[in-house]
Amino acid sequence: MTKSLSTVSEKSGLPPGALIHVGDVLETVTRISVIDYSTEHFEEQTIQSIDEILKYKDSNTVTWVIIEGLTNVDVVERIGTMFDIHQLVLEDIMNTHQRPKFEEYDDYLYIVLKCLSTENDQFAVTYEQISLLVLKNFVFVFKEKKDDLFHPIQKRIRSKRDRLRKFGTDYLTYTILDIIVDQNFIVIDSLDDAINSVEDTLLASEPTKDTLNTIQRLKREVANIRKHVSPVRELIAGMLCSESELIDEKIHIYLKDVSDHAIRIIESIESYRDILIGLLDIYISIVGNKMNEIMKVLTIFASIFIPLTFLAGIYGMNFEYMPELKWKWAYPALWSVFITISVVLLIYFKRKKWL
Amino acid sequence: MTKSLSTVSEKSGLPPGALIHVGDVLETVTRISVIDYSTEHFEEQTIQSIDEILKYKDSNTVTWVIIEGLTNVDVVERIGTMFDIHQLVLEDIMNTHQRPKFEEYDDYLYIVLKCLSTENDQFAVTYEQISLLVLKNFVFVFKEKKDDLFHPIQKRIRSKRDRLRKFGTDYLTYTILDIIVDQNFIVIDSLDDAINSVEDTLLASEPTKDTLNTIQRLKREVANIRKHVSPVRELIAGMLCSESELIDEKIHIYLKDVSDHAIRIIESIESYRDILIGLLDIYISIVGNKMNEIMKVLTIFASIFIPLTFLAGIYGMNFEYMPELKWKWAYPALWSVFITISVVLLIYFKRKKWL
Amino acid sequence: MTKSLSTVSEKSGLPPGALIHVGDVLETVTRISVIDYSTEHFEEQTIQSIDEILKYKDSNTVTWVIIEGLTNVDVVERIGTMFDIHQLVLEDIMNTHQRPKFEEYDDYLYIVLKCLSTENDQFAVTYEQISLLVLKNFVFVFKEKKDDLFHPIQKRIRSKRDRLRKFGTDYLTYTILDIIVDQNFIVIDSLDDAINSVEDTLLASEPTKDTLNTIQRLKREVANIRKHVSPVRELIAGMLCSESELIDEKIHIYLKDVSDHAIRIIESIESYRDILIGLLDIYISIVGNKMNEIMKVLTIFASIFIPLTFLAGIYGMNFEYMPELKWKWAYPALWSVFITISVVLLIYFKRKKWL
Amino acid sequence: MTKSLSTVSEKSGLPPGALIHVGDVLETVTRISVIDYSTEHFEEQTIQSIDEILKYKDSNTVTWVIIEGLTNVDVVERIGTMFDIHQLVLEDIMNTHQRPKFEEYDDYLYIVLKCLSTENDQFAVTYEQISLLVLKNFVFVFKEKKDDLFHPIQKRIRSKRDRLRKFGTDYLTYTILDIIVDQNFIVIDSLDDAINSVEDTLLASEPTKDTLNTIQRLKREVANIRKHVSPVRELIAGMLCSESELIDEKIHIYLKDVSDHAIRIIESIESYRDILIGLLDIYISIVGNKMNEIMKVLTIFASIFIPLTFLAGIYGMNFEYMPELKWKWAYPALWSVFITISVVLLIYFKRKKWL
Amino acid sequence: MTKSLSTVSEKSGLPPGALIHVGDVLETVTRISVIDYSTEHFEEQTIQSIDEILKYKDSNTVTWVIIEGLTNVDVVERIGTMFDIHQLVLEDIMNTHQRPKFEEYDDYLYIVLKCLSTENDQFAVTYEQISLLVLKNFVFVFKEKKDDLFHPIQKRIRSKRDRLRKFGTDYLTYTILDIIVDQNFIVIDSLDDAINSVEDTLLASEPTKDTLNTIQRLKREVANIRKHVSPVRELIAGMLCSESELIDEKIHIYLKDVSDHAIRIIESIESYRDILIGLLDIYISIVGNKMNEIMKVLTIFASIFIPLTFLAGIYGMNFEYMPELKWKWAYPALWSVFITISVVLLIYFKRKKWL
Repeated sequence: MTKSLSTVSEKSGLPPGALIHVGDVLETVTRISVIDYSTEHFEEQTIQSIDEILKYKDSNTVTWVIIEGLTNVDVVERIGTMFDIHQLVLEDIMNTHQRPKFEEYDDYLYIVLKCLSTENDQFAVTYEQISLLVLKNFVFVFKEKKDDLFHPIQKRIRSKRDRLRKFGTDYLTYTILDIIVDQNFIVIDSLDDAINSVEDTLLASEPTKDTLNTIQRLKREVANIRKHVSPVRELIAGMLCSESELIDEKIHIYLKDVSDHAIRIIESIESYRDILIGLLDIYISIVGNKMNEIMKVLTIFASIFIPLTFLAGIYGMNFEYMPELKWKWAYPALWSVFITISVVLLIYFKRKKWL
Repeated sequence: MTKSLSTVSEKSGLPPGALIHVGDVLETVTRISVIDYSTEHFEEQTIQSIDEILKYKDSNTVTWVIIEGLTNVDVVERIGTMFDIHQLVLEDIMNTHQRPKFEEYDDYLYIVLKCLSTENDQFAVTYEQISLLVLKNFVFVFKEKKDDLFHPIQKRIRSKRDRLRKFGTDYLTYTILDIIVDQNFIVIDSLDDAINSVEDTLLASEPTKDTLNTIQRLKREVANIRKHVSPVRELIAGMLCSESELIDEKIHIYLKDVSDHAIRIIESIESYRDILIGLLDIYISIVGNKMNEIMKVLTIFASIFIPLTFLAGIYGMNFEYMPELKWKWAYPALWSVFITISVVLLIYFKRKKWL
Repeated sequence: MTKSLSTVSEKSGLPPGALIHVGDVLETVTRISVIDYSTEHFEEQTIQSIDEILKYKDSNTVTWVIIEGLTNVDVVERIGTMFDIHQLVLEDIMNTHQRPKFEEYDDYLYIVLKCLSTENDQFAVTYEQISLLVLKNFVFVFKEKKDDLFHPIQKRIRSKRDRLRKFGTDYLTYTILDIIVDQNFIVIDSLDDAINSVEDTLLASEPTKDTLNTIQRLKREVANIRKHVSPVRELIAGMLCSESELIDEKIHIYLKDVSDHAIRIIESIESYRDILIGLLDIYISIVGNKMNEIMKVLTIFASIFIPLTFLAGIYGMNFEYMPELKWKWAYPALWSVFITISVVLLIYFKRKKWL
Repeated sequence: MTKSLSTVSEKSGLPPGALIHVGDVLETVTRISVIDYSTEHFEEQTIQSIDEILKYKDSNTVTWVIIEGLTNVDVVERIGTMFDIHQLVLEDIMNTHQRPKFEEYDDYLYIVLKCLSTENDQFAVTYEQISLLVLKNFVFVFKEKKDDLFHPIQKRIRSKRDRLRKFGTDYLTYTILDIIVDQNFIVIDSLDDAINSVEDTLLASEPTKDTLNTIQRLKREVANIRKHVSPVRELIAGMLCSESELIDEKIHIYLKDVSDHAIRIIESIESYRDILIGLLDIYISIVGNKMNEIMKVLTIFASIFIPLTFLAGIYGMNFEYMPELKWKWAYPALWSVFITISVVLLIYFKRKKWL
Repeated sequence: MTKSLSTVSEKSGLPPGALIHVGDVLETVTRISVIDYSTEHFEEQTIQSIDEILKYKDSNTVTWVIIEGLTNVDVVERIGTMFDIHQLVLEDIMNTHQRPKFEEYDDYLYIVLKCLSTENDQFAVTYEQISLLVLKNFVFVFKEKKDDLFHPIQKRIRSKRDRLRKFGTDYLTYTILDIIVDQNFIVIDSLDDAINSVEDTLLASEPTKDTLNTIQRLKREVANIRKHVSPVRELIAGMLCSESELIDEKIHIYLKDVSDHAIRIIESIESYRDILIGLLDIYISIVGNKMNEIMKVLTIFASIFIPLTFLAGIYGMNFEYMPELKWKWAYPALWSVFITISVVLLIYFKRKKWL
């Protein structure tokens, strides 16, 4: 959390409007992939200079440009100039600490959200910011990392019969949003595993100090996920309310589907939050239970042997006139007293269910 | 919870639009029952091929088709083609991880919700997804399991005088929703029993480690039930707001009745949630009380016998010049000191209400 | 809570529309009282058959019918037929597990709410469902129990000069609602006493195991009261929004007054809920405090006498070469060591404020 | 809390509309002060009979009537008759258990709220109900107590140049509301002192049983203040929305100012509530810490001396064949063992930071 | 907190409308800086008398006046007279206990908010109130302190090509708001450091009494920050809804950007609040864990040595007939018993994972 904010505050002294990359550098080299398609046509390439997309500007095909790696300010600036994008939008693309949001402009839409992923063995979520610029015939996707997130979509576009080929940029936008939102299910599965593992440790009453640290760490992760996922709901609500011509009404039903997924994810996260708070209470209960167990052992030992030791102490006294000391059966008699006391106390503790 | 999500995430890589069954397979063979009725007419059968319903398509009778078991993709696909159902709706029917919702299309309504049931001896809720497609003359019900949930409705339809026979598909839809929502009362009764049993164990101050596990398990169950039941309220609100011709205004009062039931269930669940949180606090209190009890026993034993042992220790010392050792009444005198000290301390503890 | 729901679930298999009494039978015999009045006219009687009210049907007088005891299904059914009441309303009247609500029909209004009462010595609230059917010239009140709840109203009607005589059924309805809502103040007073008594026990630091049970029981009662009282607010809001001719605008100010009372009651209940949650925290604090006190006693006794016992043990050893044993002043010297150690430790504990 | 409600419930059996004083009698004698002013004119007097104000009824001057002490039902009844005030308003004025509210009638406005005050040495808030009737040329203020709350306003009116003299009854109303709301700041300062004092006691780790009682008492006070202050916000919102001619639009900005103050007070109270809940947690933490400290002392004493006592016990045994007893250096050797064990254990405890 | 309110309550007796500085005096001398600019023109100076700005009144240039230090009532009063500012606005400027708010008047806008700053080594936030008066050609900024907060803006204005030079007072207003809101990021970074440091201390299980104090202090700081920052969101929402001509629609997108930042800050604060509450729970858990550790040591020592001491005590008794005392191998046999008991108990404790 520190990191994400400290870099923002670094910028807080700067004049608004200065285009600069803010965030952790996840890729040093920028890769630009272009897919251009229509019902009949299909083209796919990796380009070196952003100017190469100019040729698609006047065609009616859908052109999907994926920019991976955000350190190259020039690319973003050039796109801004080419398509007349507002300076603040360009800044938001470069600054990877955005809240998910949807903004509507005259000629284009701007969507920004987070793509979550997690390493399996140790639950730790990483957040990649993905920005979308949706124009009439263009969709620009700005990612921080190079990965194969969009491969399933690319594979589908290659197939001539796929629904994607029949629709415009709005359906492509939906497909992209869908794949990003569905990534969260994988993260939540992983979170579920992590929480179940903590819960099992707890309910087996074997919590260690690590358990406490893990609970606290998971609580923070859950709070973070929630912060990054819950605005997705209003993002899509915004798209549904939008009167922009760039989103055809036919697409609404698809967007609602994404919204349903987002709501289910948010609800899951809410319930994980409750569960984690509950786990801490259980941790405290278990610590209390352990304490009781420890004290029972101490109490049983001490309560039985302290009185006996006292009795032994009495007959260790050196008084001259202690008639018992001379009785022949005193010693075995005392032993039977010892045993009687022990047995009585053991029965007493048994009754109290301490044994 | 793990299961329900992991299967979803399996699908997250797939292109949207691919019809595939997602969820636990509860039935491997699909059974299709058809009931066709009007005021005068009644027919009931189990069919092998979904095409057999084609003959009802042009009649004015109400045709109720119950599909039990969702593994057979063909049946759903065929219905989709026959009645021109949107691809996303068909997917939602096959994917059993839906949030309860109501969707309105031009020619049909789509309703999906969960039917809850529970085994009596061990409180564990199972969730069955039930989808409804409501057309002008058709009601399709898609269930995951074969059971006798709808027998009461079927019995009523057979009776010529029943109100069902006079109304159309909307009243049938209400009847189905009513029976599904009312199932929750049985679950909640069972939940109530489970919570009361835990509460009794607690208030009798005999909690075991199992009690803690049960509380945590119930909390999770309650969170789950809530997640599946609370959207029912907005589902019905949506139906009431709908301007579709498929829902006659006469039906509104019946739907409001279902809504009332749903609200009562949700309120009950909310209060159970509060009670369960309270139970954990009480658990902690009781653990603390037990601790006090244990410590009192220890303190009483130790506080009485440790000083006495010390006194006995003194007269066990081997100093040559210890005048008391030679006194004739020293030994009985010391005994009276022992008894006095014990009595005084016992009175002291009595006063503190530790005895 | 169990009871109220289990009876509902018994009905869940039944076809909707079947008129049957659901709930605990509080009265086996139904009593029907009729009061008929106008500005000039007044009549009061107990009738045997509901058909006797037929004669008032065409008069312009206000006829108030109180039905006490709900086991007689015929009475309700007959009223339904006479005045053309919707089947679902009749069912709701007979089913005593309704949420408070207001429903508006063309010719009549249906109001249902709970009347709370409590026994003074042991705080335990009982809930009686009261249904009102308000027509142009009739007010039907359905109660579960025979009691004198409405005696003050009856007394007022008898007086010719009372405002009741000048208004219609809407003012009578207000008066009835007013008296039912104001019953809650008595319950809340009683609740207040119960909570204060628990609080006094706690703050006097003398909590017993019963205290815990009482807190939990009160929490459940408060949750129940809240569930039954809080919908009253929206009930009256509904009446105020209603455009039915049966509620004259002049009555609005009176209804607002009832609403104010309801809000005050709800606010009180909310604050009692907070207080009860706080009491559990205080209970835990006090248990912790007691523990500290117990441990202090143990620690003081053990810390003083264990070292002294050790010293005594040393000079109880039987080594041949222990020069101290032969010293003449060794024994009194040791005693002074004993006393010094004790005093030093006592001062130490005093400083730590453990004494 | 008990008191405020019990008196209400006393009334619950009474017919609505009966004018009776409900609440604690704070003043037995009613004092009526009248201030009559316009830009040029100023008059001030204490009158004996409410009828003396009749002479101002037809003048254009603003007449401010302050009634202190509410036991005299006649005064209120007479005003009601004179100015045609609704019966329910008169009842509300006499019943001092109102929630703060604003009601708009054709010819007058009714405002009721609470004036809070506190004794400095012991934080205990007292609530005085103040009702305002605002007419075109009259402002009636009904107070429970005689005090100098309004002296600053009276002083300002005497000055001819004061803004009050230029405006009508609405500005006077604002001034009165302003002074009542600002009283809360004094109460909150006092509350702040009380909370800080508890917090200091806690953080100095010297909590006594009184601390717990004080926290609980403050929590109740805060809940009470909140209940009485938070409706003020909506009260003023109601005045701002009102379309009554009695509130000139010029006054809106002043009312917003009062509203700002009310919001600040409510926000402060909310944060005090949070702080008090936090203090209880800290109390529990500190009790736990104390416990640890006590147990450390016990453990250190017991762990060191119990093994040593055992060793001493061994050489106190009377076996005939114990070779060590005859060794010359056995006794000093044993002492060195004693010292070594003690030192080792002390180092061990030091390392664990128990010392 | 005390301070900020007590000074308000000092004023509560005063007539509204009296211009007086309320708050802590942060600067005794008032400094007035004036920057006058248009696309072509630029002028910058520090003036002695506020009357010097009169010359800009009729020009079309943007004039930015920064008043640092609020003790000089005359300056504010003079501006009020010059530009016909409402008396209540002037009062609000002088009273440094305002809630952030936006008020719209016919000829000017009034904005007030808090600028947060913090010293790095010890997390303690200071709040400076900044008021803005926005007119057609003037922007007045009233600050409590002299500092270099606005230097970056001043630097930008000096540059002829900067966007600031092309826009009017609304863009300048945005720039000022932006820099004030972004200050919060620095505060939040600092807060994050403080919380992380506490968390590290806790999770390393080395909490001291100071840790508790720090958590409580941070909770109060977070509550304070929240109180001062969260109204900023509605402040900007108000500006966006405003139909004043003083805010051009082109500026909306910039204001939304500030709003986004404010939302992110509020969300961060909310999550810090949750984390701090969690930390207290963890503190309690750790105190419980420590307790367990202490008790384990005590129990192990006591449980092993108390029985052994008893055995030693037995053979220290002086009975005449104790056959064991004369056995040759009794003493070494007893030693082996001692060792066996110890080993058995150690294994037992090992199994329980207490060692």
